[in-house]
Amino acid sequence: MFKELWQERQQLVERQLGKELDAQQPLNKTLHDAMQYSLMAGGKRLRPILLMAAADAVGADGTKFLTTACAIEMIHTYSLIHDDLPAMDNDDYRRGKLTNHKVYGDGMAVLAGDALLTLAFEVMLRQAEVPAETRLSVVREMSMAAGMNGMVGGQAIDLESEGHRIDMDTLRSMHMGKTGALFHAAIRSGAILAGAGEKELSALTTYADKFGLAFQITDDILDVTGDEQEIGKPVGSDLRNHKSTYVTLTSLSEAQQLATETVQAAEAALQPFGERAAFLRDLVRYLLARKN
Amino acid sequence: MFKELWQERQQLVERQLGKELDAQQPLNKTLHDAMQYSLMAGGKRLRPILLMAAADAVGADGTKFLTTACAIEMIHTYSLIHDDLPAMDNDDYRRGKLTNHKVYGDGMAVLAGDALLTLAFEVMLRQAEVPAETRLSVVREMSMAAGMNGMVGGQAIDLESEGHRIDMDTLRSMHMGKTGALFHAAIRSGAILAGAGEKELSALTTYADKFGLAFQITDDILDVTGDEQEIGKPVGSDLRNHKSTYVTLTSLSEAQQLATETVQAAEAALQPFGERAAFLRDLVRYLLARKN
Repeated sequence: MFKELWQERQQLVERQLGKELDAQQPLNKTLHDAMQYSLMAGGKRLRPILLMAAADAVGADGTKFLTTACAIEMIHTYSLIHDDLPAMDNDDYRRGKLTNHKVYGDGMAVLAGDALLTLAFEVMLRQAEVPAETRLSVVREMSMAAGMNGMVGGQAIDLESEGHRIDMDTLRSMHMGKTGALFHAAIRSGAILAGAGEKELSALTTYADKFGLAFQITDDILDVTGDEQEIGKPVGSDLRNHKSTYVTLTSLSEAQQLATETVQAAEAALQPFGERAAFLRDLVRYLLARKN
Repeated sequence: MFKELWQERQQLVERQLGKELDAQQPLNKTLHDAMQYSLMAGGKRLRPILLMAAADAVGADGTKFLTTACAIEMIHTYSLIHDDLPAMDNDDYRRGKLTNHKVYGDGMAVLAGDALLTLAFEVMLRQAEVPAETRLSVVREMSMAAGMNGMVGGQAIDLESEGHRIDMDTLRSMHMGKTGALFHAAIRSGAILAGAGEKELSALTTYADKFGLAFQITDDILDVTGDEQEIGKPVGSDLRNHKSTYVTLTSLSEAQQLATETVQAAEAALQPFGERAAFLRDLVRYLLARKN
């Protein structure tokens, strides 16, 4: 049931992302190709899935907000393209495919990222069936999460701390920005679109922040315990690169303990929603079991 | 009068841009510094000035829309930072100062641009005194102008045509995107914020597109006739770099003729607005006289 629902919605996202790009009349074909290359490269579509699941929890049909769900995936994709650039992480492969700049060149990759971020804002405005004030709130959530106080801020910490050991506080801020902020925006946007009340929004925000933390800890654990094929990078690379992670700053067993506790805290936040939050509960539990 | 009004509003923009940045709580100080370095590096603030002047023409007080005016300057600044990157134009200096990446490194410059674009969307949502629907229309104008069908699209054409001669049609699309789209969005946004009717919006859109064209032609003319100190780059550099421009694709005298005609067409579009459009008229006339 959990897997089927995920796959079903993932397919909705794939189809809608393709449509959004096809509907554009780009001034330059290569730019369009470069955007498509990364946007349609698969992936779990976790952020759109979370956005829709949060709307479900509030009692709406999450698929009504597919448009905004696609917008957040565009923001996520842009961040990966820029993150892979030689000036940043300098990665040649992502999900087993050459990274954007390896195919289209560094300049076009910068532009493809820029254009995806911009398109995200255009797309989310088209979200139907919600009042203008609500759409404005969602644009606000997204812009704050994606910017200097959120995702880009986290990337800047990451860039600046390259090659240094960092302490637990800095690690936490970095991840809260780099990955946490967009999970936060996905879940809050889904809730806001579905008309969540203040208490519901607050509970889902707690869930979102625990989800983000659990995601990061399990990511760090996978670097040690994962399968090279499945995680798509050599096992133990964080350790060899002297990267500070939840595992290197504590220990594997402490990190596993923290991950379990964090998932439990996320589940506890869902309590008021009962069965409507079943999918969100499964989603955070899945983090403990994931292989990539 | 014209110069005084420009300077007065330019100072309003400077002050407000500073405030907007100071109000942020960035996760990373270097990122904040890098954004500030380019955003506060002076410049004519032409796009904010146009936005406010378009609102004046519709009968509002343009300064009421200073918030949105600052947002468009952030978009413009981000585009300059990314355009100067080694992967793009590879420029070391802008307005006599080292470019962003020369001071902060390529990675931080990518992020500073990303964060300014994102901040622009956050800031424009805060525009007071207009209904939510109007603010949404402005976000739509900005995102469409800045994206793949506008500014970034034009930059992609520029990047791809490096070292080739291009024809007049391609040159026109490139500039319509690279510089025209943001002038278009500035003027239309000012008009929309001020509550322009359909006919007024249409007349100001014509003005905007003529303004953009005249701006580009006079820019190309300055490359030949300008003063090295004032234009901030060696005279004749387009010719030496085999860049296609309105001058190289026609002739200096034909380009001057076209510039004059285009400015006249822009002025003609302002006719229905009478004296309320005096500043817009002076602005487009200034293009013929500008020295940088």
